[in-house]
Amino acid sequence: MTDPFVVVGADAAGLSAASKCRREDPDRDVVVLEKGRWISFAYCGMPYFIEGRIERLSNLLSLSPSEVDDRGIDLRRGHEVVGVDPEERRVSVRTADGETFEEPYGDLLVATGGRAVTGPFDVRGIDGAFTLHDMDAAAAIDAYVADPEEYDPDRADASAVDRERVDHNAALPAPETAAIVGGGYVGVEMAEALTGRGLDVHLFQRSEHLLPPFGEAVGERVETELADRGVTVHTGRPVGEIVGDDRIEAIEFDDGNRSETLPVDLAVVGVGIEPNTELLSGTGVELGEGGAIRTDEHGRTNLPGVYAAGDCATAIHAVTGEEAWMPLGLTANRSGRAIGATVAGDPTPVGEIAGTAVVKAFDQECGRVGFLEEAAAVEAGFDPVRETITAGSRSGYYPGAAETDVTLVADRDSGRLIGGSIVGPDRAAVRVNTLATALEADLTVPELERLDLAYAPPFSPVWDPILVAAKVLNGTLEK
Amino acid sequence: MTDPFVVVGADAAGLSAASKCRREDPDRDVVVLEKGRWISFAYCGMPYFIEGRIERLSNLLSLSPSEVDDRGIDLRRGHEVVGVDPEERRVSVRTADGETFEEPYGDLLVATGGRAVTGPFDVRGIDGAFTLHDMDAAAAIDAYVADPEEYDPDRADASAVDRERVDHNAALPAPETAAIVGGGYVGVEMAEALTGRGLDVHLFQRSEHLLPPFGEAVGERVETELADRGVTVHTGRPVGEIVGDDRIEAIEFDDGNRSETLPVDLAVVGVGIEPNTELLSGTGVELGEGGAIRTDEHGRTNLPGVYAAGDCATAIHAVTGEEAWMPLGLTANRSGRAIGATVAGDPTPVGEIAGTAVVKAFDQECGRVGFLEEAAAVEAGFDPVRETITAGSRSGYYPGAAETDVTLVADRDSGRLIGGSIVGPDRAAVRVNTLATALEADLTVPELERLDLAYAPPFSPVWDPILVAAKVLNGTLEK
Repeated sequence: MTDPFVVVGADAAGLSAASKCRREDPDRDVVVLEKGRWISFAYCGMPYFIEGRIERLSNLLSLSPSEVDDRGIDLRRGHEVVGVDPEERRVSVRTADGETFEEPYGDLLVATGGRAVTGPFDVRGIDGAFTLHDMDAAAAIDAYVADPEEYDPDRADASAVDRERVDHNAALPAPETAAIVGGGYVGVEMAEALTGRGLDVHLFQRSEHLLPPFGEAVGERVETELADRGVTVHTGRPVGEIVGDDRIEAIEFDDGNRSETLPVDLAVVGVGIEPNTELLSGTGVELGEGGAIRTDEHGRTNLPGVYAAGDCATAIHAVTGEEAWMPLGLTANRSGRAIGATVAGDPTPVGEIAGTAVVKAFDQECGRVGFLEEAAAVEAGFDPVRETITAGSRSGYYPGAAETDVTLVADRDSGRLIGGSIVGPDRAAVRVNTLATALEADLTVPELERLDLAYAPPFSPVWDPILVAAKVLNGTLEK
Repeated sequence: MTDPFVVVGADAAGLSAASKCRREDPDRDVVVLEKGRWISFAYCGMPYFIEGRIERLSNLLSLSPSEVDDRGIDLRRGHEVVGVDPEERRVSVRTADGETFEEPYGDLLVATGGRAVTGPFDVRGIDGAFTLHDMDAAAAIDAYVADPEEYDPDRADASAVDRERVDHNAALPAPETAAIVGGGYVGVEMAEALTGRGLDVHLFQRSEHLLPPFGEAVGERVETELADRGVTVHTGRPVGEIVGDDRIEAIEFDDGNRSETLPVDLAVVGVGIEPNTELLSGTGVELGEGGAIRTDEHGRTNLPGVYAAGDCATAIHAVTGEEAWMPLGLTANRSGRAIGATVAGDPTPVGEIAGTAVVKAFDQECGRVGFLEEAAAVEAGFDPVRETITAGSRSGYYPGAAETDVTLVADRDSGRLIGGSIVGPDRAAVRVNTLATALEADLTVPELERLDLAYAPPFSPVWDPILVAAKVLNGTLEK
C-alpha cells in the first residue's frame, strides 16, 4: 500500500484534489490537513454577505466536514503543517492543541492559498479596521456595520465562526463613514456592499484608475458608476496611515500635494493577497511569479511528489506559455481537480490560465482577459495595438439597449488577439468568455471579426459589440 | 470608366455591399434596384413591434432613402429586376409604373432575400390570416389586433407603408383567439407578442418539439415556458387548412387521430422562408442547398461578375466546410459588406457560418450553434455524441441563480465540438457565443473543458455551465 495523498489546505484546490483522487482511486488514503476551522468556503461571496444580499454566513459554505468524511477523506481541522521534509516524504504538523507530529506522504499537495496583504497598514488590534480574506473577517465586518440594537446573531450562523469576535464587533456603535483602501475587486465590491448597508463610502485607489487589471475603459466606467451611486472615489490618492488606537478614527492620505485626514469609523483594506508558502521554506522549493510556488503543466513543484495548486501556486499563461500568478477561483478548483486525477494515476494537465475575470460594480458588469496593460504586453514580447469602441448591447430600437465598451488588444506583427475587456450594464460580463475562448484558441483579430456570433434584437445588435471592436482594430492593424 | 456595381435588393446585404463599395472606391457608380418601397428594415424586430414593445413602425427602419443618397448610392425604389443577361452584363428592369429598360453592370449583386413559405395555406384574400415577412404585414397585423376604437394610426408611421391595408385591418373587429402555425423563431416570438396583446394564443407545431434547430432540450424548456405564460402549445399537430372565405373562421388540424377544428379570428403562418431566385432563371446559375444561389468563399456565383448574398444565397459552414443555407441577419450584413469590398478591389472572404442563432421566449433565452440534429451530423460525416446538463447560472448562494441547460455535441473520433445549445432565463443567450467561437476555432471538447472562463458569484458559478457540460461529455467520450 502506498503512502497517503496528503493535502495541505481544505478549500477549493485542496478539497477538489482530495475528492477527485478518492473518486478515481478509492483505495488510496487521502488526508487533508487544515490549519483553521473553516473549510470549503466561498471567498468571492463575502462582499455579498456583508451587503445583506445573502442571508446567512453558512450560505457561503459548500462542503461540510461530514460531507468530506462521507467521501472517505480523512479531514483534520486545526492541523497546521509547519514544515515539509521532501527527502523523507513527511510533513511536520502542529495541532491547535499544541501537539506536534510527523505525517508521511506518498504525494503531497500544497493548497495553502493566500492571505491579505496589508502593506503599511496594521489593522490588528484596531476596532473598525479590517482586511477581508476569511470568513471570520466577513462575519466581524457584518456585525460591526450593524446597529447593536438590530444585529441578528443568526447572520453568523456557521459553527466554525469566531463568536467572541462577532459579539465584540456587534456591540460596537454602528459606523457611518467607511474608507476602503484599494480599488481592486474587493474594494469595488465592498464599496457596493457598504453603500447598500447605508454607509457613506470613500474608496481610495493609489493609481489613476480603479480595477487596474481591467484597463482604463473599464476603470473609468466603474468610477462613474460608483460616483453615481454616492461613493466618493479618490483615485491617485495613496493612503498613508490608519489613525486610531483601540478604535479607528481616521485615515490619512496623500491628496497630491499634502497629507489629508478623513475621519472614518470603518476601514477595509483590500490591497491584494500574497501566497502562503512558509511551510516549504528550507526545502529548496522554487518560487516564481509573485513569490508563488512554481508549478509545471501538471501542477508539480520541483520537489519530488510535491504538487501545489490554487492561490499559492503559479500557472502557465495561455497567451505566452510563460509562468504567471493570478489567484482566481476557477484556477484553484480546476488545478486541484487535475492534480487529484494525476495522483490517482491519470495524468491530467492543470490547464492554462488566460486571466479571465469578471466583477460587478452596481449595475456595471466588467470582464477582462489576457494582456491589457501596455507594459505587460511589451514585456511578454508583443507589440500591442489597442482599440476601444462603444456599441449597443441590443438592437437600437429594442428597449434596454445599453452602451457597451469593448477594448481589444492585438499583437501588431501576428494580428493575434492578446487581450480584451468589456463593460456595460446589459449582459456584458459573460460576453468576455467569447474573448477568452478566442484568445485561448490563438485567433487573430481578422478571424475574430469573421466569427458567426449571435444576433437577436433582445440580446445583441446584428454586429455584436465584440465584432464591432474587431472591425475597428483590424482597420488600425491594416494601417 | 467601368460599368456600375448594380445591386438588386435594398435590405441588409444589398445596402451593406453598396455602402462598403462606395466607401472603398468613391469613383465607382453604385446602383441599387429595389422592387418595393421599403429599404433597410429590421425583419427581426417585427414581432416586438406587434407586441407593442416598440412604439413606431419607423423605429425598425435603419437607413432612410436620403441617407442612402448621401452615401452617393443611386437608389431606385419600385424597380424590379425581372431578368439577367450574364453574357451582355445587363439586367432587365420593370418599374412600378410599368416601364421596362435594360441596365448594364460591371459587377452584379443579387440580394433579393427570401419570402415567406405558406405551404398549403393560402392566406391571400382572407382577413385575419397573415404571414410575417415584410413591414406591411407587420403593420397590418398590429392594426388588426387593435381594438378599432383604440388603434393609433401613428403606430404605422413609416411613409412607405400600405396605408390602405393598415386602415382596412384597423377597421375590423379585434380578434380574441389566435392560431400560430409553425413553432420556429417567428412562431415562438409571435406567441409571446400576441399574448402580450391580450389574445388567447394557440401555437401549432408539426413535429414533436418547438424550435427544431435548437434541439430537444431547448424545445422542451420553451414549451413549458409558453404554457406557463398561457399559450396553448400543440406539438405533433400538423395544421391542415385555414378555414374562412373573406374572414378567417377556424383552423383545421390533425390531433393525431382525426381532424379537429379550432375557431380562431387570427392566424399567423410562419413555416419558413424560401429564397427569391426567379430573376436568375434561364441564366444557367447554379442553385444549391435550400434552392438558394450557390456562392463561393467570396460570394461569387458561377456567373462571371455576379455575386449573391443574404437570404437568397448559400454559405460555407464552418464545421464541415460544405455548403449550407441558413438565412440569418449577420450573414446577410457580413457577406454584403465583404462583397462590397471585393468589387471595390479588396478581395474579402464573406466568412463562414456556424448556424449561430438566439431567440427569446418570454423569460427563456435560447441559443444554438452547429450540428444538433443527429441525422444532420451523421450526414455531414460525424459520429455524434451528445450530453445535456443542467447547471446554475450563478453561484448557488447568489440570488437569481437559475437553471441553465447546456447541450453539447461532439464527434466521437476526433473529440471535436460540432454543436451546442443553451437555454435559461439568466444571460443564457449570449453564452452561446462561447460555443460558436470554440466551434469555429475547431476546439475539441477536452480543450473546451480547460478554457479559463469567467467566474464571479453574480454572473457564473466557479464552473461555468459550459464547462460542466464539457466535463460530462468528456466522461462520455472516454468510455
